[in-house]
Amino acid sequence: MSTDSVQTGNGAGQLFQLLRDGTPRTRAELAKSTGLARSTVAIRVDELMRMGLITPVADAVSTGGRPPSQFAINPAAKVVVAADIGASHATVAIVDLAGTVLAETGSALDVALGPVPVLTWLVDGARGLLSSVERSVSDVVAMGIGVPGPVEHSTGQPVNPPIMPGWDRFDIPGWIFEHMPVPVLVDNDVNIMALGEQGSAWPGVEHLMFVKVATGIGTGIISDGRLQRGAQGIAGDIGHVQVARGADIPCQCGNRGCLEALASGPAIARALRAQGIEAHSGSDVVDLVKRGNIDAIQAVRQAGRDIGEVLTTCVSLMNPSVIAVGGSMARVGEHLIAGVREVVYSRSTPLATEYLSIVQSVEAEKAGVRGASMLAIEHALSPESLSTAFLPA
Amino acid sequence: MSTDSVQTGNGAGQLFQLLRDGTPRTRAELAKSTGLARSTVAIRVDELMRMGLITPVADAVSTGGRPPSQFAINPAAKVVVAADIGASHATVAIVDLAGTVLAETGSALDVALGPVPVLTWLVDGARGLLSSVERSVSDVVAMGIGVPGPVEHSTGQPVNPPIMPGWDRFDIPGWIFEHMPVPVLVDNDVNIMALGEQGSAWPGVEHLMFVKVATGIGTGIISDGRLQRGAQGIAGDIGHVQVARGADIPCQCGNRGCLEALASGPAIARALRAQGIEAHSGSDVVDLVKRGNIDAIQAVRQAGRDIGEVLTTCVSLMNPSVIAVGGSMARVGEHLIAGVREVVYSRSTPLATEYLSIVQSVEAEKAGVRGASMLAIEHALSPESLSTAFLPA
Repeated sequence: MSTDSVQTGNGAGQLFQLLRDGTPRTRAELAKSTGLARSTVAIRVDELMRMGLITPVADAVSTGGRPPSQFAINPAAKVVVAADIGASHATVAIVDLAGTVLAETGSALDVALGPVPVLTWLVDGARGLLSSVERSVSDVVAMGIGVPGPVEHSTGQPVNPPIMPGWDRFDIPGWIFEHMPVPVLVDNDVNIMALGEQGSAWPGVEHLMFVKVATGIGTGIISDGRLQRGAQGIAGDIGHVQVARGADIPCQCGNRGCLEALASGPAIARALRAQGIEAHSGSDVVDLVKRGNIDAIQAVRQAGRDIGEVLTTCVSLMNPSVIAVGGSMARVGEHLIAGVREVVYSRSTPLATEYLSIVQSVEAEKAGVRGASMLAIEHALSPESLSTAFLPA
Repeated sequence: MSTDSVQTGNGAGQLFQLLRDGTPRTRAELAKSTGLARSTVAIRVDELMRMGLITPVADAVSTGGRPPSQFAINPAAKVVVAADIGASHATVAIVDLAGTVLAETGSALDVALGPVPVLTWLVDGARGLLSSVERSVSDVVAMGIGVPGPVEHSTGQPVNPPIMPGWDRFDIPGWIFEHMPVPVLVDNDVNIMALGEQGSAWPGVEHLMFVKVATGIGTGIISDGRLQRGAQGIAGDIGHVQVARGADIPCQCGNRGCLEALASGPAIARALRAQGIEAHSGSDVVDLVKRGNIDAIQAVRQAGRDIGEVLTTCVSLMNPSVIAVGGSMARVGEHLIAGVREVVYSRSTPLATEYLSIVQSVEAEKAGVRGASMLAIEHALSPESLSTAFLPA
């Protein structure tokens, strides 16, 4: 958030930002922290209370005389809708302002059906969940959506998404708003996974890379505490970086030797089939590994090394302190990570790896929905949003 | 800068942040924009005037009645000291708050002499320049310094800097403060070059990589409008990424095939010597290229390709819109950049390169001092700084 937006806020946003940490504060403390006049603070506190976003809590210890009232955030006041749309599966959830999932549903759903059927499922699903938890659309302050392709974050439009036919430049926020009038934030699915993983498993870590290994391979980058999207919203898209070992292997992108053509779930399955092993998908590979098939374990380990080769450059470039490996292929367990570690730790400078953890994603399949909810909550509780969406002009 | 720091500022910082854009504003406009009480604004404006940071300007057009006074930033009020310490050369300058260089001096100076001789030269140089422009130490609001190694930005201490013996964990800000009592900001030299290049040549660009090609090879990364330093302050350190072509070439870091061992100035000179051509330094290579030596031109072009190989991953990862190539080897002109472009444009995804410019640094040798001054000005004019350094408690 820019400094300007704070400066031009009307005060309620500032107060609310302070209260978001959950610590109860008095009017006097709020006035002191913000530099706002006591009279202004009193008015803003009343506004936030009327909106239900803050509530009075047990009084502070008396310092003599009548103890002043304290206020704190009310996490149940409002909810957000969080959705994770994958290539072939989608999830939608209702989440409160503290990040607690109140209700969730998922379905097999092909993103290639195009935006209208997919978003219709999403809006219908959200409505169903809202009634199941006895909330209404008017309780929804924002919706966060992750989609499996590049997104122009400012407009929420997918841009040239390779596996999302019909979605190019589709106005997702505009369409949703017509069917459910709430602000909508859209981002790439790996970006929201990075947000979700950091928010729940690594809250103090400011430099984290989330690596999704599934049908495709991509990363979500949090640097300096912020999600890095890049100039066209495609930062982290390492699936088509070339890997030396793969010089002869064609990729569906038209190039050769791309990481995705070597180390994704379908690529590992293809390599195993070439060895005469029955494997038609990443899921088959996971099953083989879990059954202890040596060829599958070796193939997964080599995929880890290939991913590690690309991540070595990422480590030098971004100097993260955590690399979390997730996505459906991470279900193979330590074999994939072992390959990643083997290459990253041997090839990077000691300075870059001294404090680097390369670990399995803790949130795993839940990272997407959690990140989408964080995107929505962050937006809903930002001073800009408070001053434009909630408050009288 | 964090939202908290704005919120906990005492108001003068907020006013000053608004006025930094150079637009004159009235007290009423300042009160409206900040949400501060009129009486508070009046007090803060007086404080900033007393400090000389803002001055009254021509009155606004009257809207009937007595026209209100307007205020704007006074760029000549204070100065910063900006220093760029390279491996074998150092520059120090006095710069005003608008970024204009008032005086500058440079000298051959070996950073390996250690911190005390180098910083003594710096402080003495700064004092000399200050008197030459008739300013005193009390006019200096901050000092920015770039050094050729990794820096822990929060403390200003170099951390395991490979080419700076004696500097490891040396308290640069503490030592300087004893000899010139001003706040000191220290950063890696390539980071400040990225800041300088962006600030002067690409002010609207939020995603820029500055690539320094000299004795070493490194990048400074600006993403989302902010310098990215990484968890240990070594983000951008791509000199020791391995390049396929160099598998047999030993690097001084102890590894093999590092980018720096193939494409730095000394590495190109070494490759030319192996062909029987007299070249002992990067500077010799530049001279050969300028005289049209075909072998030297081919070697430089190949170095560009090697750098391009690593930058291809960087482009996928960071999705920048500008890559500016600088450092002493950039003086060879288009041959180096042509090699970089050849590889990056053929190997990256079309989406990542559609709007990507790969260009020669515009600031060239000046980027370091300019970036160091920006670091210092940014710090001096931040709300935190205004509330702690300038204002009565």
